[in-house]
Amino acid sequence: MIQIGVVGGGDVDNETQALAGEVGREIARSGNILLCGGLGGVMEASAKGAKEEGGLTVAILPGTSKEEASPYMDVKIVTAMSHARNAIIARSADALIAVDGELGTLSEIALALKIDKPVIVLENMGEISRAAEMIKKNNLHFAKDAREAVALALARANSSTPT
Amino acid sequence: MIQIGVVGGGDVDNETQALAGEVGREIARSGNILLCGGLGGVMEASAKGAKEEGGLTVAILPGTSKEEASPYMDVKIVTAMSHARNAIIARSADALIAVDGELGTLSEIALALKIDKPVIVLENMGEISRAAEMIKKNNLHFAKDAREAVALALARANSSTPT
Amino acid sequence: MIQIGVVGGGDVDNETQALAGEVGREIARSGNILLCGGLGGVMEASAKGAKEEGGLTVAILPGTSKEEASPYMDVKIVTAMSHARNAIIARSADALIAVDGELGTLSEIALALKIDKPVIVLENMGEISRAAEMIKKNNLHFAKDAREAVALALARANSSTPT
Amino acid sequence: MIQIGVVGGGDVDNETQALAGEVGREIARSGNILLCGGLGGVMEASAKGAKEEGGLTVAILPGTSKEEASPYMDVKIVTAMSHARNAIIARSADALIAVDGELGTLSEIALALKIDKPVIVLENMGEISRAAEMIKKNNLHFAKDAREAVALALARANSSTPT
Repeated sequence: MIQIGVVGGGDVDNETQALAGEVGREIARSGNILLCGGLGGVMEASAKGAKEEGGLTVAILPGTSKEEASPYMDVKIVTAMSHARNAIIARSADALIAVDGELGTLSEIALALKIDKPVIVLENMGEISRAAEMIKKNNLHFAKDAREAVALALARANSSTPT
Repeated sequence: MIQIGVVGGGDVDNETQALAGEVGREIARSGNILLCGGLGGVMEASAKGAKEEGGLTVAILPGTSKEEASPYMDVKIVTAMSHARNAIIARSADALIAVDGELGTLSEIALALKIDKPVIVLENMGEISRAAEMIKKNNLHFAKDAREAVALALARANSSTPT
Repeated sequence: MIQIGVVGGGDVDNETQALAGEVGREIARSGNILLCGGLGGVMEASAKGAKEEGGLTVAILPGTSKEEASPYMDVKIVTAMSHARNAIIARSADALIAVDGELGTLSEIALALKIDKPVIVLENMGEISRAAEMIKKNNLHFAKDAREAVALALARANSSTPT
Repeated sequence: MIQIGVVGGGDVDNETQALAGEVGREIARSGNILLCGGLGGVMEASAKGAKEEGGLTVAILPGTSKEEASPYMDVKIVTAMSHARNAIIARSADALIAVDGELGTLSEIALALKIDKPVIVLENMGEISRAAEMIKKNNLHFAKDAREAVALALARANSSTPT
C-alpha cells in the first residue's frame, strides 16, 4: 500500500479543516494509508476524514507518550524527537500533501523535496504556499482541491516507488 | 489497540523463528498491533505469524528506504536513524517481548526498562537472557513460551497504559 | 560561549566560499563557537575561516562515521540521522547564519524559526533567500555581508539566551 | 584528537564521583576530548575533572535546551531526542568508558559494542557490570582504575580509528 503523508498546521480555521478532512477521505477511498504528525488541526481533521471512510491512519508523534495522539490515529509511533520527527514523516511518505501550514510544514516540504519525494501543495495556503512557489523543483506540484491533490500524490508516488 | 513490540536477532535459527512466529500469531489473535524493527530473523518471523492470523504489523526501519522492509510489514516507518530507532520501538510499544537476540536487543530492553515499559524476556535466550537476569527491575518478566509471553505483555500493558 | 550555527549548500561557487570563510573568521574573532553540518561547501569554508583565526569548530554530521568530516572540524558529532540532524543544528545554535544554500538550508531556517531561534540570512542567496523573504517572522533578519551577519547573530543570541 | 565518551549514572555516590573525576582528569591530561551526556552525576564529575586539567568537554544533551547542561560543559549539543541521544554518544566516541551506571548506561554499552566501538567498564560497577560480564565481546574490556581505563580507551581507539 502507498503511504500518503498529510502535513499542515496544528491549529487551523474551519475551512482548512474541511479541506483536510476531504484529503483524508480521498486517501481512504483510494485504499491507501494516511500518515501524519498525529496532533490537532490539519493532522486530526485529515485522520478523522480517513476514519469516516474506513482508512488506516498512522501518527508520527513528536512527544514522549501515545497519550498526545488525536483520537483518530490507529497506529501511534512515539518518536520523543520533537520537530526532528518531521524528517521521519518526509521519509516514510511515498508522497506528501501540504494543507495550509506554517514553519513546521515548510520544513517538511523542504526535507521531502531534498530526498526526492513528490510534494503536492494545496493552493491558496498563504505564506508557506508563497514560499514554496519560490522553489523550482520537478517534484513540487500544486493542486486546487483535495481530489486533485490525492490523485496527483498517488500518480507521483506510483511513478517514484518501485512496487 | 495495544501495541506490542517484538525484538530479537536479525539472523536466527529455525527454532527461534518458530517461537517468534508463535508470538506474532498470539498478538494477532488478541486483536492487537505488532511493532518491530522491520527486518529479518525474529522481526520477519513474528510479522509473518501475525499476518497468518490477519493481524496488523508495523515496521520501524533503521535505513533510508521502505524497500528494506520484510514483505510481512503493513505500515513502514522509515527513520533513517540506524540503531537509534531502537529507542522509538521501545517508546512506541506498550510492552516489549524479547525473543532471543543480541546487543541490539539488549539496548532495546535497557531503554524500555529505563522508561518504565514492561519487558517480557523469553527464557533460554542465551547471553542476553543471562545479562537481563542480572538486572533487578519490577517491569522485567520472564516467560517460558509464546502464549505466556503475550498474555503477560497484554496484562502488563493494560496495567501501565491509561485507557 | 555562544554557539553560532552556519548553514548553507554543500557544493557552492568560489564567491560563496569566500563569504562563508569570512563568516567563520568573524565568529572566531568574536571568541565564540562555530557549529555546522561538518561536510563541504559552506560548512568547510566557514570552518576553515574559523580555524585561521584560532576558533573552535563543531561538526554535526549526518552519516555514521567521523571520517566524513571536513578536515577543519575540531569536535565531530556523529548522528547517523541523515537530514534529521538539521534539527539538532537548529536546536544547538544560539543563532543561525544562512550563507546561500538549498532545500536542506531552507529546512534548517524553518526549524530554527519554529523554535524561536534568531536566523540571519545573507542577502542575494537566490531561491532560498526569496523563499525566506515570504516568511514574516520577528526572528528572521537579513544581512548584507559577513561582518553584519555575525554582529546581528551575536546581538540576537545574547538577547534570546539567558546568560 | 580522540573523542572519549564517559557514561554513567546521573545520580551517584561520592566514591563514584571521585572515580569519574579522575577519569576526566586523565582524558584531559592525554590531550583528548571528553564527550558525555551533559547532565549530573558521572557526567558532571568527569567533565569537572577534565576542566581542572584544561581539557575540552562536549555535552550531548537529551532535552530541548542548553540550559540543562552541567556548568563544566564547553560545547553543548541539544538533541531534543531523549534517550535516543545515547546512540549519538556511542557513535561519536572513539572509545567509551563506563563508570558505574544503570539502564541508560547499559543501553550505551550495548549500542557501542553493536557498532564495534571499544568499551571499557570500570570494575565493581554493580548490576550493570555484572550484566556486561555476561556479554562476550572482543571490544569489551574491564579496568581496575581510572588510569588503566583511559590508557585502554586510548590504545583501543587508536587501533580501531584510522588516523
